[in-house]
This record gives sequence, C-alpha cells and structure tokens, in this order.
Amino acid sequence: MDGSDAAALTDDVGFLLSRASGLVVRASNASLAGHGLRVRSYSVLLLAADSVEGVSQRELADVLGLDPSQVVLLVDELVTAGLVERRPSPTDRRTRLVVATDAGRVARARAGVDVDATLTRQLAELTAGEQLLLRELLTRLVAGGRAAVRV
Amino acid sequence: MDGSDAAALTDDVGFLLSRASGLVVRASNASLAGHGLRVRSYSVLLLAADSVEGVSQRELADVLGLDPSQVVLLVDELVTAGLVERRPSPTDRRTRLVVATDAGRVARARAGVDVDATLTRQLAELTAGEQLLLRELLTRLVAGGRAAVRV
Repeated sequence: MDGSDAAALTDDVGFLLSRASGLVVRASNASLAGHGLRVRSYSVLLLAADSVEGVSQRELADVLGLDPSQVVLLVDELVTAGLVERRPSPTDRRTRLVVATDAGRVARARAGVDVDATLTRQLAELTAGEQLLLRELLTRLVAGGRAAVRV
Repeated sequence: MDGSDAAALTDDVGFLLSRASGLVVRASNASLAGHGLRVRSYSVLLLAADSVEGVSQRELADVLGLDPSQVVLLVDELVTAGLVERRPSPTDRRTRLVVATDAGRVARARAGVDVDATLTRQLAELTAGEQLLLRELLTRLVAGGRAAVRV
C-alpha cells in the first residue's frame, strides 16, 4: 500500500468523522472508567442531573440518537448503581422521568471534571476559534441528518 | 428537561462528533447493505482494492484505528465472500498481504458509487468550502489523537 491509497480513504469526511469520534470516545471512556461510567451512561446521567425535573426516556433517545431499547438498558444500569431513579412526571402521571439521585449529581460533577479535561486535551490541536468553527459545522451536519431521518 | 439542559450537552464537540459520525455510519451501512457490506468491511475492501500490491493487516489496523483482532475478523469475512485473498508479499515472504479479487474490485466500485452518493447527501448541509474546512479540522484532530496514542 503506498501513501496515496490510504490518502484516498483518509481524505473522506465520513472516515475522518468516524476516526475522530472513535479517538474521543476511547479517551473519554478511559477517563470515565474510574467513575464506573462510559460515554453513553455518562451522557444519560448528565442529562438527568442537569435537568430540573428529570428527562423522559423518549427525550434521551432523541437527543442521544439511540434506540429506546438501548436507553432502557442504560437507565437500568444507572438505577442499579444508585445514580438515577424513575419517577412519575409531576405534570403527566403517565410519563415517567429519569431523575438523578444525590449520589448521581455528585458522580456527574466528578466525572465531568475528568471527561472535560480529556476533551480539552484532545481538542488542543485546534485554536479556540477553530474549535468554535468545528462545533458550528458539526451542529449543522447533525441538525440536517436528524431532519433527514425524520422525513 | 428544558432546551438549555440538552443544549449544554449538544454544544459539546465530543458529543457532536459522536452524533455526526453515528448519522453518517448509519446512512452508509444502509447504502452498503445491498452490497453485503458494512462501513468497516467496505473500508478494508477499499484499501485492498485501491492498492497495487495489497495491504498488510497491520497497516489496515493502523489506518482504520481498529484492533488487529477486529481486522482479522473483517478480512476473514471478506475472504469467505470471495472479495479478498491473503497472499505472501512479493517483497517479504514473512508478510501476508490482503489483496482484492476481481469480484472484490467490482464490488468495491459498485458499493463506492452508492456510499459516495450517500455521503454527498449527508454533507449537502455544508458548502463545498465548509466541507474542505471540516476535512482539514478533522484531519488535524485525528493526526493529533493518533500521535497522542503512540506516545
């Protein structure tokens, strides 16, 4: 294989997205391991802990881009660890919300410090302005992709 | 959950990378399904088919960011499908190269048309200049991440 063969693939934006995401997820999982969390369970905990009333499993699936069945497993795992609870919604008794426990809020804060530091290191290749630009481009890609899935 | 809770997570570049990559991989897998391929097996086939002499499993693992054991399984799958073969390297008999068969080159070309069209649709949210910019930012992120892993 000469350099140009690999270059054809590594210039592909889809490939680059997958590689960049893989590197960030792997590093984040490593920094979350000491907290008994992985990127997906941490994301669920974060959304539950940072919300005032809690978050429904449907909202979690939508924001995280996961199947509802995957969300149920992640929430079950966090319930077992004592980090979240399922409670009836105060505004709609038919909906159950995922709410962080006190232990969950502490775990979210501690894990957040480590995972944020890891991401900061990973992004250090880019200037602050470039990081903002990357965020904007990715936000538009994701918004477009979500809209397409819904059609 | 109000909008600002989800916004805190969805502004996170690590989260956006994971979501954007997930959307592209899912759409690509859908367009590859008719060819009996998935993104990872297609990437292996592409690297083998576009190379003159073939590619070693070590190179595949390095370029694709996969464990060597994952690469062995992907190559086994493509061998079973008759799309690649393992052959001794002409320059180093101790190294075996993954080489595309004639059927593999045809499959790579046909699948490539579909998967490239899918990616073009996914990236249509961005102008051509923005796509180049995104590619450059991701290339630097990936290069930095790979260097960090090697330290």
